[in-house]
Amino acid sequence: MSDVILLDCWASPFCMRVKIALEEKGIKYENRAEDLFGGKSELLLTSNPIYGKVPVLLHNGKPLCESSIIVGYIDETWASPPLLPSCPYGRAQAKFWADFIDKKLFDAGGNIWKTKGEAQAVAVKDFIEILKQLEGGLGDKDYFGGDSFGFVDIIAIAIISWFNAFERFGNFKVEDHTPKFSAWIKRCLQRETVAKIIPDPEKVYEFVLLLKKMNGIE
Amino acid sequence: MSDVILLDCWASPFCMRVKIALEEKGIKYENRAEDLFGGKSELLLTSNPIYGKVPVLLHNGKPLCESSIIVGYIDETWASPPLLPSCPYGRAQAKFWADFIDKKLFDAGGNIWKTKGEAQAVAVKDFIEILKQLEGGLGDKDYFGGDSFGFVDIIAIAIISWFNAFERFGNFKVEDHTPKFSAWIKRCLQRETVAKIIPDPEKVYEFVLLLKKMNGIE
Repeated sequence: MSDVILLDCWASPFCMRVKIALEEKGIKYENRAEDLFGGKSELLLTSNPIYGKVPVLLHNGKPLCESSIIVGYIDETWASPPLLPSCPYGRAQAKFWADFIDKKLFDAGGNIWKTKGEAQAVAVKDFIEILKQLEGGLGDKDYFGGDSFGFVDIIAIAIISWFNAFERFGNFKVEDHTPKFSAWIKRCLQRETVAKIIPDPEKVYEFVLLLKKMNGIE
Repeated sequence: MSDVILLDCWASPFCMRVKIALEEKGIKYENRAEDLFGGKSELLLTSNPIYGKVPVLLHNGKPLCESSIIVGYIDETWASPPLLPSCPYGRAQAKFWADFIDKKLFDAGGNIWKTKGEAQAVAVKDFIEILKQLEGGLGDKDYFGGDSFGFVDIIAIAIISWFNAFERFGNFKVEDHTPKFSAWIKRCLQRETVAKIIPDPEKVYEFVLLLKKMNGIE
């Protein structure tokens, strides 16, 4: 048995976070795709009894749940290259933005493809407002932590994999509203560890189409 | 100017977390009470522009926001006594339960006092279910981290200050459903740093009564 196993779903941005972090650290791992529609594996249900959700990282047989916590664990377990800043204040700042992204970004995007008409217009407006706040956190830096790609970049860029779907269903363009954030997206997507993991935007769009149908959303 | 300043509200369990952590570490700080109903201070709004919420901890003039992140910062900045375990796996486990509490517990309690009738019965049932899950995380240990009071205990015990209000509005008793968790509550409340910070349950009940009136909830 591999000492690092990821219970994965290709379309989950939360799984992508863990995969990008593992790539950054150069850790070899066994990827086990979960069939979320066909029934979850016994290993997933016993490893994550509270939520029953991917990603779960098993390290030497011990399960870790919740993507931001897993990425933090990866950073503490395999030291190089560091993803979080070394000073407590920088670490707290990084965790603040990661927490902001966790609380807001993916759900706000979900509100776009789950609605239509006036409700969707509100959802698009809310989503752009969140991106502007996030752009404020990025400021004029190349990456959220400064000059190098790190923790917050991983937490955020994984969700960008769904932006094409959000934009098409909401009929808007992120780059029309947040130029600095959009430049940061392009910068991250050129990175080998990110490019390797982030799936084709069209495949994600088709996945969201499928989700809409399954949930009876026209 | 004091080098540690807390922007505080006496009734906020999130502020209590920060105060208990500071007491545990023996850190002297200046407490500035915010008048949340009368208008927030300029310092609060500029220190926490994203949420505009207490608690904010200012350390040497630099602001920190979000209570769980602040408690983590306090633990990293003032090493003794440690609040989080030293091994990465133990830290990840602690963060998992802190995150679970953050996502679930206070909002579930809010659903009790904000509703009545059938909706309230469902809210009480949901709340007890969350407590049972949390009790599972505690297991047979004295504290969430094992033998000593630590990070998860601080995150959870602060919210216990509102339990009297939840119980009275919902007409139930926590100890009837979760005996081990209730024993843990009693153990924590005997601790000097906790007893000093947690307010009189009756005062909190009256505060929640006031909140109900202000929000037009009968």
